[in-house]
Amino acid sequence: MGGDHGVSATVPGLALALKHLPASVRFLIHGDEARIAPELARAPELARRSEVRHTDKYIASDEKPANAVRRGKGASMWNAVESVKAGEAAAAVSSGSTGSLMAIARLVLRMSVPMERPPLVVPWPGLKGVTTFLDAGANVECDAARLVEFAILGEAYHRVAYGVERPRVGVLNVGSEDMKGHDEVQQAHAILRSGRLDMDYHGFVEGDDLSTNLVDVVVTDGFTGNVALKTGEGAARYITEELRAALTSSLPAKIAALLARPALRRFKARITPTPAAPLLGLNGLVIKCHGGADARDFGRSVGLAVDLAGSDFMSQIERNMSRLGAEPAGDPA
Amino acid sequence: MGGDHGVSATVPGLALALKHLPASVRFLIHGDEARIAPELARAPELARRSEVRHTDKYIASDEKPANAVRRGKGASMWNAVESVKAGEAAAAVSSGSTGSLMAIARLVLRMSVPMERPPLVVPWPGLKGVTTFLDAGANVECDAARLVEFAILGEAYHRVAYGVERPRVGVLNVGSEDMKGHDEVQQAHAILRSGRLDMDYHGFVEGDDLSTNLVDVVVTDGFTGNVALKTGEGAARYITEELRAALTSSLPAKIAALLARPALRRFKARITPTPAAPLLGLNGLVIKCHGGADARDFGRSVGLAVDLAGSDFMSQIERNMSRLGAEPAGDPA
Repeated sequence: MGGDHGVSATVPGLALALKHLPASVRFLIHGDEARIAPELARAPELARRSEVRHTDKYIASDEKPANAVRRGKGASMWNAVESVKAGEAAAAVSSGSTGSLMAIARLVLRMSVPMERPPLVVPWPGLKGVTTFLDAGANVECDAARLVEFAILGEAYHRVAYGVERPRVGVLNVGSEDMKGHDEVQQAHAILRSGRLDMDYHGFVEGDDLSTNLVDVVVTDGFTGNVALKTGEGAARYITEELRAALTSSLPAKIAALLARPALRRFKARITPTPAAPLLGLNGLVIKCHGGADARDFGRSVGLAVDLAGSDFMSQIERNMSRLGAEPAGDPA
Repeated sequence: MGGDHGVSATVPGLALALKHLPASVRFLIHGDEARIAPELARAPELARRSEVRHTDKYIASDEKPANAVRRGKGASMWNAVESVKAGEAAAAVSSGSTGSLMAIARLVLRMSVPMERPPLVVPWPGLKGVTTFLDAGANVECDAARLVEFAILGEAYHRVAYGVERPRVGVLNVGSEDMKGHDEVQQAHAILRSGRLDMDYHGFVEGDDLSTNLVDVVVTDGFTGNVALKTGEGAARYITEELRAALTSSLPAKIAALLARPALRRFKARITPTPAAPLLGLNGLVIKCHGGADARDFGRSVGLAVDLAGSDFMSQIERNMSRLGAEPAGDPA
């Protein structure tokens, strides 16, 4: 039911995804049957492989996460996560509010790693592909152990999501020299290069390395990560806005913009981040698809969920966590 | 002698600056007379108003700052800063290495405010003008007092540099709500909104507010600031690189690029940061001009130095620092 377009993006998205998925994949669709049925009627193959679990309750996109947790039981988002916990579904995919999805997932599935909440994972577009960047804002204060846990989660995720056998991992710092940065990044650096973990650790990276894809996975605390994400988004918006202004500033420029339209459309697609981000570190798979997603975007998110569910990425995380000697956390705070 | 172009940018830059400056402004030019004289011969009015202080020693752009301090005495950069200390010059302007200039300025002039080194000040281009952003990397660990001092320095600087009577100041955070962020930003927020300082304090801002110029001055610690700067630069480089690729991807796109060339040149100028940045918090005025500066850039930096020297910005800083009850630091660390 979630996202800007609701069932008119999510259900056709499933139909699109189906074309690329193994014949064994089936869907549980949680939401308002009266609105889902007409969409399913247009996709008979999908209808055959889906089961609709009706509920007329849903979490509004502007609902406060605390309220979503208190009053969300029985809502479509809640039921989707619950079906993962019950073992009925291998993964849940939602276009609903990130905050509410995270809060419900934490409560229902619990964390499998010792951190308060799943790090925000951002697929950062760059010259040679995508860098997996975390934490973009969920855990504001992070010690060295947390940064190392992010590295374990991000590395396992990147392997499946982008088919990279040995993802290279970096720690975000103010310089690439070993001596730079504050205590937390220094200690994380020491653990990561100790060789205790099964991981291709590169070392420190800087903010501009995100866009050059120097490494595959970049970890940082949620404060720095959120500032980096918002700053990068702001810079991108500013530059494309100035470009738009320049290309409408004169008649020759307008003609140029018209001529270059297909190229500019490809340009926009290149600099636009991929639509799906996982909630990592939970006892179960939950994928957040961005709210503005169209059917194609939602379909890609479902494909990612299937890839993750078919991989041994949960046990890879577990293995590296146990090499670290970390204990799983108790209740979420 | 500094920067990529040496005296062929700096001396013509002075000649350009002269056209807009009061008749009372005179220059001390520190460097190799044999290379400066031919440039001055082409600018008789500048020659009349300048005095060359010969030295054949200079700090190379790749010199380590620690070496610049140990062995730099008598170099052109050192002498320029020394002339400020001696009261012979109202301000020093250099295109030389930032690290060396900062190290020499700290040693010769000493800090006037209680921090280890001058914050890196970045003129951040945005939709409505320039946001003064600090610290972009000089002081990696900052407590609340440091953030407040950055606010005092940045506010006084922005007023003179951009002619804004009451610059609005914000603290960079992961959300704009009062309750968000870690202890340091919370405490700085409390001091800044207490009204003890003579300042238009806006509150918390986020990374994307830099490019929208929501406030005039944004302060953060040197770790977060450096990551934000490098991330923004990286995003800008990535996007302009993708744009270049798009506009050479087909014949129509190439024709479009040709047609739009003047507009694209203006676009590039808009998104390029201004060339000058002050070293704030010293007992004297030092302006760093970027290394790639041409004559026009260097001239603008000299204009900024004259504006600062003609203002009461040093005493404004002093007044707000004393409202804060801060003590000046002793020796630089």
